[in-house]
Amino acid sequence: MAHTAENTANPIRVALLGAGTVGSATARLIVEQNEELAQRIGRPLELVGVACLDPDEVNVPWIDKSLLTTDTADLCTKADIVIELIGGTTAARTFVMKAIESGASVVTANKALIAKYGPEIYAAAEAKGVDFYFEAAVAGAIPIVRPLRESMVGDKITSIMGIVNGTTNYILDEMTTKGLDFDVALKDAQAKGYAEADPTGDIEGEDAANKAAIMASLAFHTDVRIDDVNVEGITKITADDIAAATAENKVIKLLAVCENTEAGISARVYPALIPNEHPLASVRGSFNAVFVKAEAADDLMFYGRGAGGDPTASAVVGDVVTEARHITHGCTGPVIPMYADLPKAPLNASRSAFAVRFVIHDKPGTLAAIAEEFAKRGLSINGVNQDLKPTLHEPGYSGELQQLRLVTHLCDEVTLREAVDAVTELDFVSGEATILRVMD
Amino acid sequence: MAHTAENTANPIRVALLGAGTVGSATARLIVEQNEELAQRIGRPLELVGVACLDPDEVNVPWIDKSLLTTDTADLCTKADIVIELIGGTTAARTFVMKAIESGASVVTANKALIAKYGPEIYAAAEAKGVDFYFEAAVAGAIPIVRPLRESMVGDKITSIMGIVNGTTNYILDEMTTKGLDFDVALKDAQAKGYAEADPTGDIEGEDAANKAAIMASLAFHTDVRIDDVNVEGITKITADDIAAATAENKVIKLLAVCENTEAGISARVYPALIPNEHPLASVRGSFNAVFVKAEAADDLMFYGRGAGGDPTASAVVGDVVTEARHITHGCTGPVIPMYADLPKAPLNASRSAFAVRFVIHDKPGTLAAIAEEFAKRGLSINGVNQDLKPTLHEPGYSGELQQLRLVTHLCDEVTLREAVDAVTELDFVSGEATILRVMD
Repeated sequence: MAHTAENTANPIRVALLGAGTVGSATARLIVEQNEELAQRIGRPLELVGVACLDPDEVNVPWIDKSLLTTDTADLCTKADIVIELIGGTTAARTFVMKAIESGASVVTANKALIAKYGPEIYAAAEAKGVDFYFEAAVAGAIPIVRPLRESMVGDKITSIMGIVNGTTNYILDEMTTKGLDFDVALKDAQAKGYAEADPTGDIEGEDAANKAAIMASLAFHTDVRIDDVNVEGITKITADDIAAATAENKVIKLLAVCENTEAGISARVYPALIPNEHPLASVRGSFNAVFVKAEAADDLMFYGRGAGGDPTASAVVGDVVTEARHITHGCTGPVIPMYADLPKAPLNASRSAFAVRFVIHDKPGTLAAIAEEFAKRGLSINGVNQDLKPTLHEPGYSGELQQLRLVTHLCDEVTLREAVDAVTELDFVSGEATILRVMD
Repeated sequence: MAHTAENTANPIRVALLGAGTVGSATARLIVEQNEELAQRIGRPLELVGVACLDPDEVNVPWIDKSLLTTDTADLCTKADIVIELIGGTTAARTFVMKAIESGASVVTANKALIAKYGPEIYAAAEAKGVDFYFEAAVAGAIPIVRPLRESMVGDKITSIMGIVNGTTNYILDEMTTKGLDFDVALKDAQAKGYAEADPTGDIEGEDAANKAAIMASLAFHTDVRIDDVNVEGITKITADDIAAATAENKVIKLLAVCENTEAGISARVYPALIPNEHPLASVRGSFNAVFVKAEAADDLMFYGRGAGGDPTASAVVGDVVTEARHITHGCTGPVIPMYADLPKAPLNASRSAFAVRFVIHDKPGTLAAIAEEFAKRGLSINGVNQDLKPTLHEPGYSGELQQLRLVTHLCDEVTLREAVDAVTELDFVSGEATILRVMD
């Protein structure tokens, strides 16, 4: 059921769903570079329609007003390639499936859609003999999906560690370089357009988790969905945590980590302490980077802009051109086989060192009591650091507050969290603890 | 003339030409991961023969002795995919063309072959309806060919700067971190296997130039060959040059630089002074990295192992799997259109600041005489630095030698070299000058 080759001058019909920042930038590349793209493909691209919510709000000179439509479902059936840039998982899924049923190949930047419904969409596309491309869904302009799907497919990937959310990396970087507290850095990021008005999806780690699910699926040939990803965000990290990291020549980064362990596939998002020498430590501002380890290739890193209209559009149009070449040559691209079907590793399967910070009322015996909670769970402590924090206050408590930081030896996270929860219940402990993974 | 789809259990026949380090590592991945690869492809791979010069010298457990042959030409006609890992440009070309004529797709790691005959091979493969893949030819395991051919094909690449030769990067890194002189660092690299017994192709920049030609062709859709690349190596760089760079918070790196300028395509290899903050500055040891700028994607960087048996084999087998999937699905991959046919920029078209180091006899008036040679050619000097070098000696000269370093404002290289040549002719100047480009 592959496309039929048509090596003619007939244009390839492209439908664009969504005319927001990325949609508009995508339309610009397709329209303004049309001649150049035609030479790369062998046939011209024709933008046959742009679906949007309100045509009156789309005012860019490169989108012809006559192309605008609110009938998205209808537009899906009238193209060779449908570009889905609506976002969300409900309408987007309906339209993507409709496009595939109509025999169109689909290009999308929608990470949430793939992390939730990817394997069903891959199967539908394969059954229909069309392609489904989504380079822009992970780390924006950085080619990471194609390298995982194709370049590294002769190798055995062991782990992926990525800084795949520009908003949180920008916030953590501002906290590090300017000593800002989380709330201040977040407001600054919102003012500069690096964070949305509702930043929850970014700062709680869900956006990164979507990308972790996608990368784990591709790397390990196993169906990994958003619900399989264990997620921690960065909202509990304080300026003090950052300062403590800096003092140890480390930085705090929010990582998406995918591992093929003996206990199965692990896909996680968590903040971690990284040594300054690690290549990921120098990823600044809103940049993204993905670090991949494979048996034969060894270490690889991919770095670039993970978001923004133009960078995302670059990846989208790269997929459109690849797909247009396939249509011109009458073939389809690689399918995404989920043959391995590896088990999901339980949370306690992987071991790590952890850095934990408690805020406590300053009195004798606190360290002994905390150490006892760790010891009775078999957790061994590598180092402890206490400092008075006259800047911290607790309602109804007139004494001084102290910060206690401890670093564990390698342990499993389930037991670690039990110990932290038990300590948090102690009467001299105030507020919530911060837990950071310590990378070697 | 595309392959005919055969969705059967028939194995895809793979012939391996060459059983050296990379050939042997490639065979291992194909044999040891055979079952895994079959699931990724949908059909098994069968290694049908390994061509070598002397079967008695191939002794690895994963290559069945019965597969070894010295009849390379014959083997080329008996496979669906021919992997060329012989190296060189004469026999390799003959066998690659023979394989294509026989209807086989070809995978190679041979940068010299592509930099010399690439476009003829692309055309032959396209005419025959087979594929020609060469991810391993540039920067080993790092996916850079596929991103240039496919991921970034919707964008407009403006420049590429790569550290694409591990031998020279290792030598420069050892000189930087250990204060070694070039000859000592080279011997050390040879002892550790990072440099060959005859290191000329690496240290004079030719290996990097091959990769520059390939990257420029792919990025700018223009036929760029090894003869179009202007090349300088690193043999003139001294421990003093490195120390002077370090004092300015810079490092010296050998770069392959491809640019799309107003005057045309420029492909160059030269040593350059890079600020420590630049992502390429932290590429250590024998690692490679390629930094790409594109209009929409902005900055991207790809980092990893640029050489070695296993990393190179990882890229080779990635191409083999991609090609095997095409054969299974009865199609071919993207052709490489050279439609743009942009002119080659003359050497004096691009402007740069340069750092030049002369060794001079210590006497009054030397700086005035040197400055005069620069001034009369319209070259403006940004800064000068002189220091006595009691460690330097010149046969037949009993006075003290001095080192004079100057940095120019932006100028063209042709005029710069004229001035440097004129200064070198002055009677108080000793030996050859070092010329380094200064990157912002």
